[in-house]
Amino acid sequence: MSKAVILLSGGLDSATVLAQAMEQGFECHALSLDYGQRHKAELAAAKDIAASLQVREHRIIHIGLGDMGGSALTDDAIAVPEHAGSGIPVTYVPARNTVFLSLALGWAEVLGALDLFIGVNAVDYSGYPDCRPEFIAAFEELAQLATKAGVEGRRFEIHTPLIHLSKAEIIREGVRLGVDYSRTVSCYQADDAGRACGVCDACRLRADGFRSAGIPDPTRYR
Amino acid sequence: MSKAVILLSGGLDSATVLAQAMEQGFECHALSLDYGQRHKAELAAAKDIAASLQVREHRIIHIGLGDMGGSALTDDAIAVPEHAGSGIPVTYVPARNTVFLSLALGWAEVLGALDLFIGVNAVDYSGYPDCRPEFIAAFEELAQLATKAGVEGRRFEIHTPLIHLSKAEIIREGVRLGVDYSRTVSCYQADDAGRACGVCDACRLRADGFRSAGIPDPTRYR
Repeated sequence: MSKAVILLSGGLDSATVLAQAMEQGFECHALSLDYGQRHKAELAAAKDIAASLQVREHRIIHIGLGDMGGSALTDDAIAVPEHAGSGIPVTYVPARNTVFLSLALGWAEVLGALDLFIGVNAVDYSGYPDCRPEFIAAFEELAQLATKAGVEGRRFEIHTPLIHLSKAEIIREGVRLGVDYSRTVSCYQADDAGRACGVCDACRLRADGFRSAGIPDPTRYR
Repeated sequence: MSKAVILLSGGLDSATVLAQAMEQGFECHALSLDYGQRHKAELAAAKDIAASLQVREHRIIHIGLGDMGGSALTDDAIAVPEHAGSGIPVTYVPARNTVFLSLALGWAEVLGALDLFIGVNAVDYSGYPDCRPEFIAAFEELAQLATKAGVEGRRFEIHTPLIHLSKAEIIREGVRLGVDYSRTVSCYQADDAGRACGVCDACRLRADGFRSAGIPDPTRYR
């Protein structure tokens, strides 16, 4: 049974990816990052999802990304917008996926895993540079050069099963795999109980996804 | 005046790199990582060095790398060896420079900086995969794809001025720039006052460096 490290935010996408990795038969080691995000309820959701999908292990690593500022998700001085503008949104956290994949890679080295899963999506998050296929390909190359395993000739794979799916397609896939989306939190400003605001970009995308998929939205709104 | 982010561990190499970046006229933003390393005295040294070289700003970011285990530097269950064996040493921290450069990149984005400095060295640390020029080149490519600035066509540069220098050459360069090496801590198991053990690999390399450079060793041993 091969080991895999799955980045699990507690949102809809990463919960789906985890269910996919489980279905593919990987021994799943889920990794969540506590990076000073506003939406701490995400982490509680991640714990809940990891437990309900019966992963082998779930770790939450603390990282002081919020101390650097620069994003509406970690900096209280920047408001979360209700409507996405054009270009890169203020909810973009600088170099977030680079940092997250680096940590996943480090843990993979410790575990002896070569497979990493991340729920990036190039459709809905086209404004985020680190959600694009060319970024993932570059990280895969870096992993070969950065690690003991890579130097020894083993090959890392960064799995991005959602990268070209619409939100509705992701939701259909998750429902097929039995993911309980009421446990996931997507809202950028969820309350402590994990209830969504219903108006931020993340909430809109999610609600549209359920609507397009023709599946009742189980999201808990406040 | 261009801004630069300098990774500052508190050791001899990164102190030298910081002095070089200052000499080159960069507005220097020093970044230290508190990653659960045994040798906490490094961080106190980093603060001291940053202050003495009058950097624009110095931040210490906490990151729970120790929670992943796998290295003698963060895991108490693995002993720090007195003699280096062949191959990759147990003091290697999985994906450390990937994680550190990712964080430096994130902060650079927030600051609007395009220049990153890191004191990697391919001579003394040839056993660490993430100290090699090909790793640095791959990270530079990743930075272009991972960031807003890169997408907009600006070019990041990862400066590694020590990469091909011997320890003696690094020390001569630092002495020329006025670095006070008594403030730096290289020892993997320094005590709280920053005094070195004198027997670990890092201590040996450092002492050999001063000897070869013909410069009296200012290290504080316990």
